[in-house]
Amino acid sequence: MKTIAVVCVSGGVDSCVSAAVAAQSHDPAFLHVNYGQRAETRELKCFRDIADFYKVEKRLVVELGWLGKIGGSSLTDKTQSVPEGRLGREGIPSTYVPFRNANILSAAVAWAETLGAQAVYLGAHEQDSSGYPDCRAGFFEAFGKAVGLGTRPESNIRIVTPVLAMSKAEVVRKGRELGAPLELTWSCYRDEHIACGRCDSCLLRLRAFAEAGIPDPIPYGKK
Amino acid sequence: MKTIAVVCVSGGVDSCVSAAVAAQSHDPAFLHVNYGQRAETRELKCFRDIADFYKVEKRLVVELGWLGKIGGSSLTDKTQSVPEGRLGREGIPSTYVPFRNANILSAAVAWAETLGAQAVYLGAHEQDSSGYPDCRAGFFEAFGKAVGLGTRPESNIRIVTPVLAMSKAEVVRKGRELGAPLELTWSCYRDEHIACGRCDSCLLRLRAFAEAGIPDPIPYGKK
Repeated sequence: MKTIAVVCVSGGVDSCVSAAVAAQSHDPAFLHVNYGQRAETRELKCFRDIADFYKVEKRLVVELGWLGKIGGSSLTDKTQSVPEGRLGREGIPSTYVPFRNANILSAAVAWAETLGAQAVYLGAHEQDSSGYPDCRAGFFEAFGKAVGLGTRPESNIRIVTPVLAMSKAEVVRKGRELGAPLELTWSCYRDEHIACGRCDSCLLRLRAFAEAGIPDPIPYGKK
Repeated sequence: MKTIAVVCVSGGVDSCVSAAVAAQSHDPAFLHVNYGQRAETRELKCFRDIADFYKVEKRLVVELGWLGKIGGSSLTDKTQSVPEGRLGREGIPSTYVPFRNANILSAAVAWAETLGAQAVYLGAHEQDSSGYPDCRAGFFEAFGKAVGLGTRPESNIRIVTPVLAMSKAEVVRKGRELGAPLELTWSCYRDEHIACGRCDSCLLRLRAFAEAGIPDPIPYGKK
């Protein structure tokens, strides 16, 4: 029998491919976090579609609405505009949500400990989000140590970030190789039916598919 | 002007005394977490009373109800009985909530980063909760490193656990010394008006006040 792994699934390409990697060697349990991100409704649909695709029975949606409400991010603050044409600029993007990945991982580890899971998968991606401090390898290493010390001795929960060091194009290729349902994913910052194709997140996605030489299977609005 | 510190205030003696320590050198911002603990309503009242005492303006109540719902703890699972007469037994108590302190600290750090706070205070207590893995000094040290790596470089948020290494009697004495409002605190596992005086948490508290030679200022029900 496969051991359980909790997979944090936002509904984007990175988490979908991480789920595909996890499913190779584990029985995946899917966790989704709502924190007031702009595309919350659309992401939740993708979470459910990808969970159905992998026939995942154990599902948990965690509400961290307060994380969006404390402010500090254009990803959750609807009075700030979505960044467009920012690719390549220096510094921490306005979409950074303070300590978000620690909050997501802490939730995932708590659930993992209850389920007796051996691992927590997170689709963080260092290169394309290099400005986010909680997307760096050093952070995950330190957090992993805190997990080892802060859970039951018999728990042994590993933090696994399978796409962390890949380029976005490599993530797309890996997804294709593993048969991940990329057509069910959502990257756009906007909470709509058709992706805008203009926000930074759409641009990163389009560039990645182009570099991978694989057609992006989702439709886009008028550019 | 004093720098801001986020203080995690459950409403018990340990967090009240930690708030008193924080208030000596910081402008305290109070955080309370609801996670479906049995005494949730009573604890929230204490949080507000202690915040009023210290004239705290910045207050945040974070709902982590899912943490109680995933199970695994008699502290949140009302089908399990509250432990009585367990003091001195070995192993991790049934009241352990998986990775609770990491979830509380992650929330506190996110808020601290938004506020520009320099520290997060948590009233964890190693000796009397030695069975909880997330109450050990090693866990807080590792978590502190993850905070340093996972937040903005300019944030510099320290994790401070002022009562961690004290005995419970020392915590009571420290509280008295600093004029902490111990009469506003609540320790009982039960969500009632008068503390039961029988559950493990009441017994620990009563023993601590007795050892400190200070009368416990709160009333107790018939024992």
